[in-house]
Amino acid sequence: MKNICILGSTGSIGVSALDVIVGNSSGFKILALSAGKNLKLLKNQIKRFRPKVVSVINQNHAERLIEMLGRPLKTKVLWGDDGYREIATLKDVDMVLSAIVGAAGLVPTVEAINAGKDIALANKETMVMAGSLVVELAKTRGVKILPVDSEHSAIFQCLEGHDKKDVRKIILTASGGPFLRLPEAKLTEVTLADALKHPNWKMGKKITIDSASMMNKGLEVIEAKWFFNIDVDKVEVLIHPQSIVHSMVEYKDGSVIAQLGVPDMKGPIAYALSYPERLADVIPHLDLCDVGKLEFFSPDFKKFANLRLAYLAIRKGGTTPAVLNAANEVAVEAFIKGKISFIDMPEIVKGVIHSHQPIEPQTIGDVLDADRWGRSKATEIIERISVS
Amino acid sequence: MKNICILGSTGSIGVSALDVIVGNSSGFKILALSAGKNLKLLKNQIKRFRPKVVSVINQNHAERLIEMLGRPLKTKVLWGDDGYREIATLKDVDMVLSAIVGAAGLVPTVEAINAGKDIALANKETMVMAGSLVVELAKTRGVKILPVDSEHSAIFQCLEGHDKKDVRKIILTASGGPFLRLPEAKLTEVTLADALKHPNWKMGKKITIDSASMMNKGLEVIEAKWFFNIDVDKVEVLIHPQSIVHSMVEYKDGSVIAQLGVPDMKGPIAYALSYPERLADVIPHLDLCDVGKLEFFSPDFKKFANLRLAYLAIRKGGTTPAVLNAANEVAVEAFIKGKISFIDMPEIVKGVIHSHQPIEPQTIGDVLDADRWGRSKATEIIERISVS
Repeated sequence: MKNICILGSTGSIGVSALDVIVGNSSGFKILALSAGKNLKLLKNQIKRFRPKVVSVINQNHAERLIEMLGRPLKTKVLWGDDGYREIATLKDVDMVLSAIVGAAGLVPTVEAINAGKDIALANKETMVMAGSLVVELAKTRGVKILPVDSEHSAIFQCLEGHDKKDVRKIILTASGGPFLRLPEAKLTEVTLADALKHPNWKMGKKITIDSASMMNKGLEVIEAKWFFNIDVDKVEVLIHPQSIVHSMVEYKDGSVIAQLGVPDMKGPIAYALSYPERLADVIPHLDLCDVGKLEFFSPDFKKFANLRLAYLAIRKGGTTPAVLNAANEVAVEAFIKGKISFIDMPEIVKGVIHSHQPIEPQTIGDVLDADRWGRSKATEIIERISVS
Repeated sequence: MKNICILGSTGSIGVSALDVIVGNSSGFKILALSAGKNLKLLKNQIKRFRPKVVSVINQNHAERLIEMLGRPLKTKVLWGDDGYREIATLKDVDMVLSAIVGAAGLVPTVEAINAGKDIALANKETMVMAGSLVVELAKTRGVKILPVDSEHSAIFQCLEGHDKKDVRKIILTASGGPFLRLPEAKLTEVTLADALKHPNWKMGKKITIDSASMMNKGLEVIEAKWFFNIDVDKVEVLIHPQSIVHSMVEYKDGSVIAQLGVPDMKGPIAYALSYPERLADVIPHLDLCDVGKLEFFSPDFKKFANLRLAYLAIRKGGTTPAVLNAANEVAVEAFIKGKISFIDMPEIVKGVIHSHQPIEPQTIGDVLDADRWGRSKATEIIERISVS
């Protein structure tokens, strides 16, 4: 029986994780949940899973939630940064599923590691922003960090039982998103609705747009570097529109190990939660005859400048990836709000990282400073664009 | 440094193995070789690798070889069953590569196991004919048997580091051979030359014809059952014309691990020889963009009756697979000699296994009796066909 805390229980990953846990209730107990704005769903989750404690964004939300819950429940309701910290470090929790979207996931995840909790990491920003510090901290605290991204879960599974020193290359597959076959010139015209139509994966808004712009894959390249302690030159991206091969590892003899499955986040979530065990019947059977064919192409680094910028950021190193991520979060939000166009996003990211002087972060504080700097710089550029 | 004996050094596998060893001479020493009829090649191998001892088919061949070698070499030349036995059990040998084609490989392989030698097994007939006895013997003798067939090497690699009890299914891929897209009715017309044109793999004659008739895959199903101690109902065959995915393992959560590579037997040979290490740069880099697409189909059990017969044989159990193999060897030889047509082959195999009363073999002698019975029965049927 593993005691679980889910940071971000009402998001796409959180909901799928609770689905997995419902199907395997003898193996897991939900001790704590946290949510953003979706109080209604959180209320239902509380009634279903009876966690000891939950946390929400602020006092106002906490009061509304208590009201919605009606008759007194045993669940304690917390809020704000202190609330997240408390549930991430709760005494009896064995594993924290870190599934908050974006930079906001960093601090609670770091606190959970600090408290010695094993981490199922869906929040890739933790690695992108602070990979060097997080890996070091996990080592010091004897904490296992297990990947929840489908690509990193695939790589993790492809490395199991093989010798890391034999790895020649990690090959991250990418669906290519909704604009894979769109001519580059047409990218100027794409709308928010177009960008939200992912061909294979059902995910949250932010990550779906990142998939359309391929920033998601760029962040995953950086994440892979830290997760698997590998030089970024050995991390390759391969377009695979069917999203069946979730990623691969090429070994020095020329042999390639790949992990395949239907595109369903329950697969990697369950693997991270139950590792080293496998749960039964987590995702539907993969029928390759039904899929018919698997295709592979090289990515277009010119059309998807974000991918190039991510490689640039990790090569520049230090605080640059944190700044890249911050600029992108601000740009995506501006795109969602209709303030900028799709192709403005990589331009903003580029502008921000080119004007950044990276330092080697010594603390999470350094990383958060860089994050703030990146956000304010991106906002500046967006204001300039909006005016012109 | 591993001391190696190669049974069948002038065949396709033997030659590739020596290629691998040339590229990694610091890791391996060739102590013994054996060959069939290709004395010229064996002579060159002796001059190159200076084995302590070699063995050939009979005294006549041995005398010719000694003459061909010219000035006295330090290599001892043996012959016949005693010769094979002596080199398979040679004191300083660590690993025997069993690469003799067909039933003839069984006895020397069993003797090598009995002498405590680790086995790199290319001779699938060892498992097909005597799987239960061989697995038991290897266990008793503390011997590792490593697969050299590309499919079984793939499965072996896909199982490494994962829990065997989590395996839901083993998926053997098959190119489908040269007649994959030929209408069933046209199979009556195919010639020996047609059957020898394998689309992807360069192999010996017998196995190339077995690939065209899909008996090769049938034998591999049986081999997989014994190698991986799995119920044959959990072994599936999937047509994959590109021969890039060499086989897969489906786990109980729905996750599939696959092994990929360019079709080159040096990959599995090197892996078996060097396990648990990997050698460097054994096969060319797999460029999936270059391959473009990977396709998958269900096999046609009606058109390729041999595949159905192989499942039937292992389900009937006991000596039936040995009889299946014997009948097929005789049928393939008759097809090569032009005595029977391509579609006669499965008919002969079917006739033989349907008239066989299997027993549970207690000794290799029982297996060899079944082999002889299968051959004579198949010969009988062929004579009937030739007359009519």
